[in-house]
Amino acid sequence: MRKLRVAMVGGGRDAFIGAVHRHAMALDGRYELVAGALSSTPGKSLASGRDLGLAEDRIHADWPALLADELRRPAAERVDLVVIVTPNHLHFDVARAFVDAGFHVACDKPLVHGVAQAGELVSLVQARGTAFCVTYNYIGYPLVREARELVRGGAIGKVRKVVVEYHQGWLAGALESRSNKQSSWRTDPAQSGPGGALGDIGTHAENLLHTVTGLAIEELCAELASFGPGRRLDDDASILLRLSGGARGVLLVSQMAVGHENDLRLRVFGERGSLDWRQEEPNALIHAPLDAPPRRLTRGSAGLSESARRACRLPPGHPEGFIEAFANLYTELAADLHAGTRSGDYPRVADGARGVRFVERAVASQGLWVDMAAA
Amino acid sequence: MRKLRVAMVGGGRDAFIGAVHRHAMALDGRYELVAGALSSTPGKSLASGRDLGLAEDRIHADWPALLADELRRPAAERVDLVVIVTPNHLHFDVARAFVDAGFHVACDKPLVHGVAQAGELVSLVQARGTAFCVTYNYIGYPLVREARELVRGGAIGKVRKVVVEYHQGWLAGALESRSNKQSSWRTDPAQSGPGGALGDIGTHAENLLHTVTGLAIEELCAELASFGPGRRLDDDASILLRLSGGARGVLLVSQMAVGHENDLRLRVFGERGSLDWRQEEPNALIHAPLDAPPRRLTRGSAGLSESARRACRLPPGHPEGFIEAFANLYTELAADLHAGTRSGDYPRVADGARGVRFVERAVASQGLWVDMAAA
Amino acid sequence: MRKLRVAMVGGGRDAFIGAVHRHAMALDGRYELVAGALSSTPGKSLASGRDLGLAEDRIHADWPALLADELRRPAAERVDLVVIVTPNHLHFDVARAFVDAGFHVACDKPLVHGVAQAGELVSLVQARGTAFCVTYNYIGYPLVREARELVRGGAIGKVRKVVVEYHQGWLAGALESRSNKQSSWRTDPAQSGPGGALGDIGTHAENLLHTVTGLAIEELCAELASFGPGRRLDDDASILLRLSGGARGVLLVSQMAVGHENDLRLRVFGERGSLDWRQEEPNALIHAPLDAPPRRLTRGSAGLSESARRACRLPPGHPEGFIEAFANLYTELAADLHAGTRSGDYPRVADGARGVRFVERAVASQGLWVDMAAA
Amino acid sequence: MRKLRVAMVGGGRDAFIGAVHRHAMALDGRYELVAGALSSTPGKSLASGRDLGLAEDRIHADWPALLADELRRPAAERVDLVVIVTPNHLHFDVARAFVDAGFHVACDKPLVHGVAQAGELVSLVQARGTAFCVTYNYIGYPLVREARELVRGGAIGKVRKVVVEYHQGWLAGALESRSNKQSSWRTDPAQSGPGGALGDIGTHAENLLHTVTGLAIEELCAELASFGPGRRLDDDASILLRLSGGARGVLLVSQMAVGHENDLRLRVFGERGSLDWRQEEPNALIHAPLDAPPRRLTRGSAGLSESARRACRLPPGHPEGFIEAFANLYTELAADLHAGTRSGDYPRVADGARGVRFVERAVASQGLWVDMAAA
Repeated sequence: MRKLRVAMVGGGRDAFIGAVHRHAMALDGRYELVAGALSSTPGKSLASGRDLGLAEDRIHADWPALLADELRRPAAERVDLVVIVTPNHLHFDVARAFVDAGFHVACDKPLVHGVAQAGELVSLVQARGTAFCVTYNYIGYPLVREARELVRGGAIGKVRKVVVEYHQGWLAGALESRSNKQSSWRTDPAQSGPGGALGDIGTHAENLLHTVTGLAIEELCAELASFGPGRRLDDDASILLRLSGGARGVLLVSQMAVGHENDLRLRVFGERGSLDWRQEEPNALIHAPLDAPPRRLTRGSAGLSESARRACRLPPGHPEGFIEAFANLYTELAADLHAGTRSGDYPRVADGARGVRFVERAVASQGLWVDMAAA
Repeated sequence: MRKLRVAMVGGGRDAFIGAVHRHAMALDGRYELVAGALSSTPGKSLASGRDLGLAEDRIHADWPALLADELRRPAAERVDLVVIVTPNHLHFDVARAFVDAGFHVACDKPLVHGVAQAGELVSLVQARGTAFCVTYNYIGYPLVREARELVRGGAIGKVRKVVVEYHQGWLAGALESRSNKQSSWRTDPAQSGPGGALGDIGTHAENLLHTVTGLAIEELCAELASFGPGRRLDDDASILLRLSGGARGVLLVSQMAVGHENDLRLRVFGERGSLDWRQEEPNALIHAPLDAPPRRLTRGSAGLSESARRACRLPPGHPEGFIEAFANLYTELAADLHAGTRSGDYPRVADGARGVRFVERAVASQGLWVDMAAA
Repeated sequence: MRKLRVAMVGGGRDAFIGAVHRHAMALDGRYELVAGALSSTPGKSLASGRDLGLAEDRIHADWPALLADELRRPAAERVDLVVIVTPNHLHFDVARAFVDAGFHVACDKPLVHGVAQAGELVSLVQARGTAFCVTYNYIGYPLVREARELVRGGAIGKVRKVVVEYHQGWLAGALESRSNKQSSWRTDPAQSGPGGALGDIGTHAENLLHTVTGLAIEELCAELASFGPGRRLDDDASILLRLSGGARGVLLVSQMAVGHENDLRLRVFGERGSLDWRQEEPNALIHAPLDAPPRRLTRGSAGLSESARRACRLPPGHPEGFIEAFANLYTELAADLHAGTRSGDYPRVADGARGVRFVERAVASQGLWVDMAAA
Repeated sequence: MRKLRVAMVGGGRDAFIGAVHRHAMALDGRYELVAGALSSTPGKSLASGRDLGLAEDRIHADWPALLADELRRPAAERVDLVVIVTPNHLHFDVARAFVDAGFHVACDKPLVHGVAQAGELVSLVQARGTAFCVTYNYIGYPLVREARELVRGGAIGKVRKVVVEYHQGWLAGALESRSNKQSSWRTDPAQSGPGGALGDIGTHAENLLHTVTGLAIEELCAELASFGPGRRLDDDASILLRLSGGARGVLLVSQMAVGHENDLRLRVFGERGSLDWRQEEPNALIHAPLDAPPRRLTRGSAGLSESARRACRLPPGHPEGFIEAFANLYTELAADLHAGTRSGDYPRVADGARGVRFVERAVASQGLWVDMAAA
């Protein structure tokens, strides 16, 4: 199979997530980065493109130039996929323009800044029929897929409660007052959107909960806080959830939780068993059946579901990590792009939209119960 | 030092917690059980007393008979301490009567059934000047004491957030419909009080939070649930907390959390570090300073505070457990009883009263914020 | 049942293991310490006896005085059991004298200083018919018992290999040059015997291996080392083993392994599964069946063998530790003493003798294979 | 920088390690696979080359054809690197031929079949001045590098003892009697060489020990065993080591250790501290200083050595795994190839040769001490 041609918007020198996307696309050899508008600073965009070995005529000063250039090129040169890894506030304009022009898109999360934008984008993707992947990378882990299959297959019975936590400590100090690129835009409402930790990592938690259990958040009661000195967005949130089917939930996120690095954990309690998975030890999943000893399921081992096995490159005991999980989304997307299908195992624009609504409703909650469906 | 003479109310054959109290009192050789009214069933009371080697004339059919007998005896025979380990609904009458008669008391938790009873008992203890220990045993662990000293000493800076969880799975099935003594009274409101999991283990969680951090719960928002079929009391609770000094908290308890056995965990996040302790691995405490690698502190090791060291019998690596922690309360109480002081490191009647209020307010919350101070 | 009367030899103020024996005997309320020769220093012996509340006339300056006094007393006063917790070099004389006089004995390990002494003691115990418990306390853990039952019951098939490690770090520095009572006698060949770490903890490792697997060490090849400056006995040993039935083994012990506290670990690999147990997390046992996920068995949980369940006081998740395991030996011994049987689940004089032979042969090995059966 | 052109020998369809090399080379975008002789079966070689998108004229039926073709091509087309991932017995002929022709080589381990071959290859590489990387991938982990820097920098003082274990369970059954490609050639002496588990994973363990500590094995005493029914090579080995500078060591490998997946663990004990690292949790390293609590060092965190930091792509808590570590060798090699230097941080032909000698001496030992330097 030929490699898919990719253009990247954002992700220039010093950006964090853009490099991750490139590693993830490279890992399985299915993609080739050929074009980009890699920074909002033209000089940096150019330098970044050269670093990555792009041809000079495919390095652009901004995304409209990239779009215009792509539209001029013959199909055999034109990119198959546009990857959007800018700060959050730019996602909407870029995504809308490329989708509207018929391009397939992979976009980082949170998708956009509000439910209105999200709704418009969902409709547009549907209208154009393009593929659209939101890179909620954690659900690319094989054992997250296994958890999903176990829950859906009834292994733990009806779900009663879900506890999902995402604890980080990197914003415990006043990092944004120093010159940390990540913390500076992520704590600026204009660039990051209405949610701080909520948007950055709460959306991952919400998506993980939804993906594994299939349950929807119907109501939530969110207590947000900003502990960092002078911080304008939440760096901590504790949220009670009422889920579809009568299940309950708790979603905790924090970026000032010293001692936690990137500690996303999901526990699902059902009538006949429970599941426990932690992102920092992603190669294992604990399945505790009612009235029997807990079993430690491992990536690559015999007996996993087909969908989990498909996401493994290596035998058990040979750890796969963050990049591998991220790559699994791209691998599924590649299959769709090659085949013209839309059946791959990756998050869609609707998942991204649900996350946007989650952030918006949580911010609106102010400690009271709010309905997720409400405007 | 002579052994302290003890009478026990409750704790007959098949009772769980009474036997634990006896192990705990026996461990350090400071107590001698000499009298009892061990069951509400006279025949069982007698048989239980004989099992324990009590003299026939000190085995009583009910607690009033025990009280009357004790009052008749000369001081040299009279018990030094009355231990109350009945089902919860009996705590109040028994405790009130013995305190009123001037006896020192150790009483299991939750203390009593409502803030009115609790208040009366607090006043009475104060008036009589007796010692009164509420056996919140988890704070007897050396590393819980170490956590308290670290927080109080400023090792992690101002506390921002506390997450305390207590997950058990033993009520995941409908245990009370079978003949399980423990589950049957613990799930009966008349015997157990207004809280189910909340009273049984939530009070431990509240007390742990308070003891370690010194912070008070000012407001709470509690979502209770009963998942067990036909269950009349909560078996799951998720509670948001607003703590004194602006800190936030989350308190989770569940008794239907399959895969968790007795999983009490406390995390305290401060401006300059965090602490993490789990009851199921009680011999270690993780202290993560801001900007430095986490340190694993262990029971018995050099460098612990005096109060933690005093609670250790064995060198590091020789695990001490539940009974040892429990015994530490009794050891501190013994010192008070011998010396006539009231300065020992054990929970008091006021701690028990605070727990009763916590349960009452959490039940009243019904998903809304309520003030802890309110009636 | 009446409490058994106990005399203790050794175990005075500042002794470590004597206090552990007392805690262990106290825990279940089956023993009462009534007499003692607690120290080789008469003044200390007296003070120690008073600390423990012994009657003045049952505190003795030395063990011959204790023995003489006991023999003078009527049966109703005479002790049921003599507990020997002196430094190792005194075990033989004391044990021989009391056994010869018909007393039941519990003796700490290593049993005596050489196979000749050990053989004599074994014969004497057999001749007198007394009960004799060697306090290899680690096999009192419920999950060690469970491991034994699983191996014996064929759960992991024929045993192929055993890896037993016992790592401590407390002698990494030159502790004996300071005034540490424990390290000073334990590193003195005259008091400790021919083995240092080998005798102190290697015997525990050997006994654990033997107890769980039932296999005998047929040949061994031992590399001993003394890393502590000026140390006269081994503080580290690495030993290859050839076991009965063709199995292989490795036994590692060290007391200079910084970072390990009391890290005894046993792994047994069989044709159809494996077991893994660590003393520092004694409430769990990992059972990995061939071709299925590992199962985590926990103390107190359903499905354990009768012999493991009998060793549990508390439900799962309520940690039991070192003292509880130690107490389990005493509880089994108590049953034998009450019933006049010799069927309890505790290590016998022959186990102690096997440990003595193990040390002697390992010291003799000097890096070459030696036969365990050889003189 | 332009991508380096690579030819691969071996690694066709169904091969395990060839695919890992391709993932590792792809990850950082520094290599491009352009040619290959991917299988000893011509049809499979062709199909495999097409799978990988190689041009038809660069897919060869065997490695001599590949070599001949490369030598015919102009420098601008010729490959920069030849990667050898055949079964072990073919390494020597292929490596010798390509090195002799002046090609840079990356070769899997164990290097060749005996010290004679190894010596010849070392000399040839020296004579030709080519780069030669032996893919001992585990030393590419950032925290292995950190361990090396800590030891070399004196953080744990003089090394006293090293315990390195490599336990796997995949050969616990008679896998080779079924149709498992991996197990069939790895258990065939003609293809695998004189060592079974010893060659396959023991060489990794030896290299890890040597790389981290800088110590040489001077003498060893090895007990090999074959537990798998009908197995002709060792599947288990227990080896005592005498290391340079008076340190001692133990090296354990097994492929019949049910319950272990790929459990390589290194513990280094020094006078002033210890280190503990496990491949299955590669993102953490435990450093226990003498007389202070153990510290958990994590990949990506502040305070790591420059050499460890250089090996990280992601922030702490974002797990990197096996492929990332593998890729780190290739990244260091790429820098050497671009710059014409030989200073990269990857294992050399001499490391491979040392491993071959280790296997040979261990096989020769037969339970007795042998000198590593001896013929």
